[in-house]
Amino acid sequence: MKLEIAVLSGDGIGPEVTAQAVKALEAIAHSFDHTFTFKDALVGAIAIDKTGNPLPEETLQLCADTDAVLFGAIGDPKYDNDPSAPVRPEQGLLRLRKELGLYANIRPVKAYDTLLEKSPLKRNIIEGTDISIYRELTGGIYFGKKQLNEAGTVASDLCEYSKEEIERITRLAFKAAQKRRNKLTLVDKANVLESSRLWRKVVTEISKEYPDVDLDFLFVDNAAMQMILNPSQFDVILTENMFGDIISDEASVIGGSIGLLASASVGDTCCMFEPIHGSYPQATGKGIANPIAAILSAAMLLEHFDLLEESQAIKNAVEKALELNLTTPDLNSINPLTTEKVGDFIYDYI
Amino acid sequence: MKLEIAVLSGDGIGPEVTAQAVKALEAIAHSFDHTFTFKDALVGAIAIDKTGNPLPEETLQLCADTDAVLFGAIGDPKYDNDPSAPVRPEQGLLRLRKELGLYANIRPVKAYDTLLEKSPLKRNIIEGTDISIYRELTGGIYFGKKQLNEAGTVASDLCEYSKEEIERITRLAFKAAQKRRNKLTLVDKANVLESSRLWRKVVTEISKEYPDVDLDFLFVDNAAMQMILNPSQFDVILTENMFGDIISDEASVIGGSIGLLASASVGDTCCMFEPIHGSYPQATGKGIANPIAAILSAAMLLEHFDLLEESQAIKNAVEKALELNLTTPDLNSINPLTTEKVGDFIYDYI
Ligand SMILES: CC(C)[C@H](C(=O)O)[C@@H](O)C(=O)O
Ligand SMILES: CC(C)[C@H](C(=O)O)[C@@H](O)C(=O)O
Repeated sequence: MKLEIAVLSGDGIGPEVTAQAVKALEAIAHSFDHTFTFKDALVGAIAIDKTGNPLPEETLQLCADTDAVLFGAIGDPKYDNDPSAPVRPEQGLLRLRKELGLYANIRPVKAYDTLLEKSPLKRNIIEGTDISIYRELTGGIYFGKKQLNEAGTVASDLCEYSKEEIERITRLAFKAAQKRRNKLTLVDKANVLESSRLWRKVVTEISKEYPDVDLDFLFVDNAAMQMILNPSQFDVILTENMFGDIISDEASVIGGSIGLLASASVGDTCCMFEPIHGSYPQATGKGIANPIAAILSAAMLLEHFDLLEESQAIKNAVEKALELNLTTPDLNSINPLTTEKVGDFIYDYI
Repeated sequence: MKLEIAVLSGDGIGPEVTAQAVKALEAIAHSFDHTFTFKDALVGAIAIDKTGNPLPEETLQLCADTDAVLFGAIGDPKYDNDPSAPVRPEQGLLRLRKELGLYANIRPVKAYDTLLEKSPLKRNIIEGTDISIYRELTGGIYFGKKQLNEAGTVASDLCEYSKEEIERITRLAFKAAQKRRNKLTLVDKANVLESSRLWRKVVTEISKEYPDVDLDFLFVDNAAMQMILNPSQFDVILTENMFGDIISDEASVIGGSIGLLASASVGDTCCMFEPIHGSYPQATGKGIANPIAAILSAAMLLEHFDLLEESQAIKNAVEKALELNLTTPDLNSINPLTTEKVGDFIYDYI
């Protein structure tokens, strides 16, 4: 297979970890006789520094023209505490999601047997956890109208959802549940929010098309509790943008390291793959960033193109690295490897 | 001291647990020679059933006229999955908060030594945790304009905050930090939301009045992670309404049972005390509900009126019950006591 892949490595540890993901894909191309071409482009704080724009038009064009996007991370502390900064790196990511129509963000959360001890949660709580979170990614309060009055004393954000926006991701989530354990949990706040009540209504309607899937509902506050008390109760979780952001980051603690979690963002025509950790500026350039989330994002990319054996080859290499404890300091405090060395092992193993 | 207390026990397990809180206050009145008068009133689903209104005017009037409100729980599953129900129990609680001006919801989260083993989190993670969460309670997306278009296909909720709304709770939170460990963490999503950027700006300004308090910021997704990875890093957490709802319910897992967590909701003239667990309909009438959260809410009431010794007497009785494992099934699966018997022990001990 021939694939053109845009590589947007971004800020902080983004470039280091993305380089390892590219390497893993190169190993796959070599072993399975595919042709993957990689094209780099700017995004985030580094794009602001170089062009004044967190998502230069060239980058957007490249993403639209290629088959898939491999994304690193964005964000720089110099923007975070400056509420008045006119451009911020995050705008690049948000615009990219919107322009490419990446409405479904899929985040698998798994408790790896070899890592059960690393989790802050007790073994008996997390054992067997295998969740797929479907987070809506191009709607809700992230993209609703934002206002600040002239005096700068009243600010607002609008959380808006349409039936169509809810329907398309809901169908993806039900289909995913059918391939898994046939359970779907909608997380919302329907006892307070009008938009949540629309979610509940639309999802309930669509559930009739998937009679083999059990649907249940959880208020987001309760879900935040249940995720820690009993995570193995979940199969597919479906939720809106902001709740998905919070719940999936929370769920990331289950596996023992956020450095393990990959994500896919898909739409009707484009797709993007990205580790869920952020730019982790304190670690930049030190070789301590865990590349596994980025590498598993590459595995999700292969899966997306139905290259299942190839995807499994990456996952096997990752499991091997975990098993042998050939990992970065977040998982191995005694005898850690650098980011690059972990990537090398996985390259060689494939 | 003379105190008139409105008792709104509400739905589900509300009445059972609130009865134990009243009993604890009666024990205090008796031992310390105070006069506490209790006046019952309707709220929630039971109020809808009896009057059609989740917050009857009489109830509101009573709350405004008394010194404090003791609240049980509200909510009934028959309303949750009916997005089109014209009145819902939650409206009663939300209106009560708004009308009484209870803008600050204070939720202490503590890891009790005797209960460290009950938590889903490992002992070394939670040991020493002692957090006070200040959640804004009368603003934000809970109270912003809600809209549903005529076709029922587009729904929205507005999250709006004014400088004044942010200022008043921020001052309370800084004062609380001064009496504790001098650290305040603002939880927001300032990299995406305009309202969060206003929070960050206003809180930063006010921090200058409290130079002895260290202020830091955390994005809500990261906070949801940090709460589990390293909860003892927090002292006072300040946040807006919806984030506070999610983060504080999540934090409730630390102590091993949500049945332990009390809260105070305060404004400039009124105050209300309430366990943070909900109406837990499945447990209603079975005598298995943990009354400790309600009883500790009564302790917060006493503290609010500077009856510190009295408040401590309740807390001591609770610690004793925990130490002797005289508790309900959530904490004692071998030899549990009923809700009422736990209340009796605490009454007698005081
Ligand atoms: C960087 C930020 C805008 C982003 C989000 O909140 O969506 C990130 O937290 C994520 O979850 O991908
Ligand atoms: C019942 C509901 C409206 C309420 C809230 O979300 O505020 C509850 O979850 C709480 O936290 O007190």
